[in-house]
Amino acid sequence: MVTGPDPVTSQSPPIPTLEDVARRAGVSTATVSRCLNAQHKVSQDTREKVMKAVDALGYTPNFGARAMAAKRTHTIGAIVPTMENAIFARGLQAFQETLHDLGYNLLVSSSAYQPSLEAEQIRALVARGADGLLLIGYEREQAIYDYLAQRGVPTVLAWAFLPDRPQASVGFDNRAAMRKLAETVMSMGHQKIAAISGLVKGNDRAADRLAGIRDAMTDKGLDPAELVVIETPYDIANGAAAFATLMQADDKPTIVMCGNDVLAAGALSKAVALGLRVPDDVSITGFDDIELAGILHPPLTTVHVPHREMGRAAARDLVHMIEGHPAITHRQLDVAIVMRGSLGRL
Amino acid sequence: MVTGPDPVTSQSPPIPTLEDVARRAGVSTATVSRCLNAQHKVSQDTREKVMKAVDALGYTPNFGARAMAAKRTHTIGAIVPTMENAIFARGLQAFQETLHDLGYNLLVSSSAYQPSLEAEQIRALVARGADGLLLIGYEREQAIYDYLAQRGVPTVLAWAFLPDRPQASVGFDNRAAMRKLAETVMSMGHQKIAAISGLVKGNDRAADRLAGIRDAMTDKGLDPAELVVIETPYDIANGAAAFATLMQADDKPTIVMCGNDVLAAGALSKAVALGLRVPDDVSITGFDDIELAGILHPPLTTVHVPHREMGRAAARDLVHMIEGHPAITHRQLDVAIVMRGSLGRL
Repeated sequence: MVTGPDPVTSQSPPIPTLEDVARRAGVSTATVSRCLNAQHKVSQDTREKVMKAVDALGYTPNFGARAMAAKRTHTIGAIVPTMENAIFARGLQAFQETLHDLGYNLLVSSSAYQPSLEAEQIRALVARGADGLLLIGYEREQAIYDYLAQRGVPTVLAWAFLPDRPQASVGFDNRAAMRKLAETVMSMGHQKIAAISGLVKGNDRAADRLAGIRDAMTDKGLDPAELVVIETPYDIANGAAAFATLMQADDKPTIVMCGNDVLAAGALSKAVALGLRVPDDVSITGFDDIELAGILHPPLTTVHVPHREMGRAAARDLVHMIEGHPAITHRQLDVAIVMRGSLGRL
Repeated sequence: MVTGPDPVTSQSPPIPTLEDVARRAGVSTATVSRCLNAQHKVSQDTREKVMKAVDALGYTPNFGARAMAAKRTHTIGAIVPTMENAIFARGLQAFQETLHDLGYNLLVSSSAYQPSLEAEQIRALVARGADGLLLIGYEREQAIYDYLAQRGVPTVLAWAFLPDRPQASVGFDNRAAMRKLAETVMSMGHQKIAAISGLVKGNDRAADRLAGIRDAMTDKGLDPAELVVIETPYDIANGAAAFATLMQADDKPTIVMCGNDVLAAGALSKAVALGLRVPDDVSITGFDDIELAGILHPPLTTVHVPHREMGRAAARDLVHMIEGHPAITHRQLDVAIVMRGSLGRL
């Protein structure tokens, strides 16, 4: 029901037009068009009225044009939370390379970790004729999943493994992976743990990783409520600032677990700037194992994520669905803890 | 002539159809479609025949559909050589943010530094209704510029400053910037210079930066032919490997100038691995001043490129053209040498 071949190619439901939307919303077609294309030029009230009509009718801008053109555009859309650092870059590059080998183009948008912007971009990509979509993680409004199901747009969720969901997924268990790292950290004697996390709101990966640390603490008989957490956008400078704050506490942590390698790189550079020796004075860990992790001093203990493998598998699964195999696959990839110099025994 | 408002909105030339192309190429419409959408499934001969007809007629796939839809899609396309490292990420993010403020969506493709793939993606983005394009650098076949001019697609070239060209540009003089860095390097006593460059073929930025080093050597009375150069794709591991090769020479360089910070980060990490002190045993410089440059040990002397400013200016200039101001602007941004610990006096 949720995924499958483009309905345009088989039993097409009646296609709602721009006029239908305008009539239902009680506005002009020009207003509907502005709403869909340049929504900031429209008042909040009007926008809500129009979007309600769009959702009710299942309208996709340009859908008529899309049906007119070849049944497939051989274009895939991907929406990532950010293009600004290396987190998604490697997986996305592999995704594109595999798509290209399979005869598909990739168009990428970045949502800047804003759910409303992601929703806009999903509509825009469907309007531009995307045959299928790659989305990151799973936390988003049900209305978006309904919209994609209604339009019959095959979708793969990456960076997440969700065997119970109706959408295809390829990824790993963020919570279990971080829990395993936290267990390793505690097995080396650390009990005063602090975390620098990405912003949890709208980011299921960040939330799951924090939950993983708390799971391990609970297991070990520690109070997870005592985990000191600073949330900050993924950025080297933010990691550095958060680390400085953590080290000003009276009861300093012996280990700072970072939500990803970018934050950890910032923490590490700040440790050096503060004259702290890593790992003798404080240990630091990351997540992702981006290329940078191995060349820092000391190199970073982190969780290795097989970004390229994930990108390739997502491409193959998505094209498989687009080309008429509606089966939903859930693919779990192995992650592994990479022990390097930034984590020491207490 | 080259840029300006979409001709569809004013005096439309007759729009060639898929059938016109098929007739001219002497093939079926299905073959033309395959050629445009999944060209690897078509023989080289057929492809050439079809693309010749496409170029002769100025055919754009889906162009009829595009004309049918609203005159503007409020979607901009950008094609960058790679999404895999930080080189373009920051500028692109700023480009997208500014576009969003102006009511436009951004779709990004990566060409993997392959001119033929870039050409494909340009056609795909125009076919998907892009109102305008951002391209990186200037070195590409004239046929592409002709195609964009014929279709009336406003285009801005970024990462380059080209006052004599008919396309809008926003960027800086790569050759002059690297020349200035090389002059600084030589003023500090270095004469044995080696370079680790990105692959020069199809990358005008890389070629111009090497030319800048040679300019400075000539000025100083050195033979530019003596510059030892290793070309390698931009990647930390490649920078490390190239550095190791350079340091095996009998007549070792006292300074290794890298084509960008990613290569320099690799060189720096390899220097540490080889037990070399930077800058006491060897100096290393980069280009770009990505965030990483400041947290390496020692931090990297490099050329600061105002990536965000470039992205914002490109967005404003492109939207200005799309919205009916066909004037071509050329915008030169200031770059500056950032002196940090990786460059020492000889």
